[in-house]
Amino acid sequence: MTPDTGQRVRDAAVKLFADKGFHGTGIRDLAREAKISSASLYHYMGTKEELLATIMTESLGRLLLAARQLPGEDPRERLAGLVALHVLTHATRPAETRVVDHEMPALSAATRRRIIGLRDEYERLWTDTIVDGIRAGMFRDAEPALTRLALIEMCNGVSRWYSPRGPLSPDELAVHFARLATRMLGATENDFSSVIGRARSVVSTVWNNTR
Amino acid sequence: MTPDTGQRVRDAAVKLFADKGFHGTGIRDLAREAKISSASLYHYMGTKEELLATIMTESLGRLLLAARQLPGEDPRERLAGLVALHVLTHATRPAETRVVDHEMPALSAATRRRIIGLRDEYERLWTDTIVDGIRAGMFRDAEPALTRLALIEMCNGVSRWYSPRGPLSPDELAVHFARLATRMLGATENDFSSVIGRARSVVSTVWNNTR
Repeated sequence: MTPDTGQRVRDAAVKLFADKGFHGTGIRDLAREAKISSASLYHYMGTKEELLATIMTESLGRLLLAARQLPGEDPRERLAGLVALHVLTHATRPAETRVVDHEMPALSAATRRRIIGLRDEYERLWTDTIVDGIRAGMFRDAEPALTRLALIEMCNGVSRWYSPRGPLSPDELAVHFARLATRMLGATENDFSSVIGRARSVVSTVWNNTR
Repeated sequence: MTPDTGQRVRDAAVKLFADKGFHGTGIRDLAREAKISSASLYHYMGTKEELLATIMTESLGRLLLAARQLPGEDPRERLAGLVALHVLTHATRPAETRVVDHEMPALSAATRRRIIGLRDEYERLWTDTIVDGIRAGMFRDAEPALTRLALIEMCNGVSRWYSPRGPLSPDELAVHFARLATRMLGATENDFSSVIGRARSVVSTVWNNTR
């Protein structure tokens, strides 16, 4: 398999799964979008489900790798960094992130368990940050696991509505969302510009080096 | 058309569109799920897109009707009521709300414009509430339109992850989300139990009387 063709098949799948859903995307659609024949497509992707699993594993892997490179001992900075990372990736890679956020139910049970394991690892970074902030007396919240779900869904939404043709840049969006998250946890607002800058550079490094 | 058969077709469509997406649902799947023949299905639904448009129009119509029955002059109460209404409907009608929240891109341009008009009307109630709260000095926020999007996506998420078998009831969920929204707007937390109770009763009245 040449790396180019494999990547072209995955790019085609991300676009079609995001637009028409996993179940709405046929093998012939994929072949047409990737510009190869249906017969050779099987050679590059295995089953359609394996292709979805690969896309999700790679995307969640990148998110985890990036999240682990965020700085900060201070839970307020860590939270702002996680929010910025999530918002930036969802604003700049809406198709890829929509597929990860929406198509989990399309996977068979065993594959789903494995990929949910990855997602859990990523979400644990959020929960730990919230819990650390509460322990340090910086955050105020009675239901950290629920608040983590609310925060992540708020940030996931960006891939559904954000348009680069609108008035806000991904960075401005990240700043506003970091403020919302900070207030949601009952913490005092900081100047997060250095955290956002760091998140931006982590995103660009990780995404450029893993594709 | 007997009302029962038409409703059965819409219920089948809600279930399948939520599980497999609009593009992933075939006419034969719909006929099988609704337990009628493919031939008579056309008689009950028009095109598949008309069926989706009907489902969305009815669901958004109910949400608007319910939102207009919420009490409160106080923007903090109005916000808590809107959050509770949105969370309760998404926790108790996950398939219907997922279809409305995800399948807008599947509609053709003219139909989409009409239905986005309805959604805009509903979302305007949220924006007005936030803006009124800022004017009254109760809320603190620099980007009301963006914050409204963040809030609604946070509440939409409930239909994707909430399980009635989990530890929280829809009411407890609504209370926590009303608190998160209140803090997000930089407002002081209140006891919202009467607002939540009112939202619950509005939801049950509107949904029972319009089906």
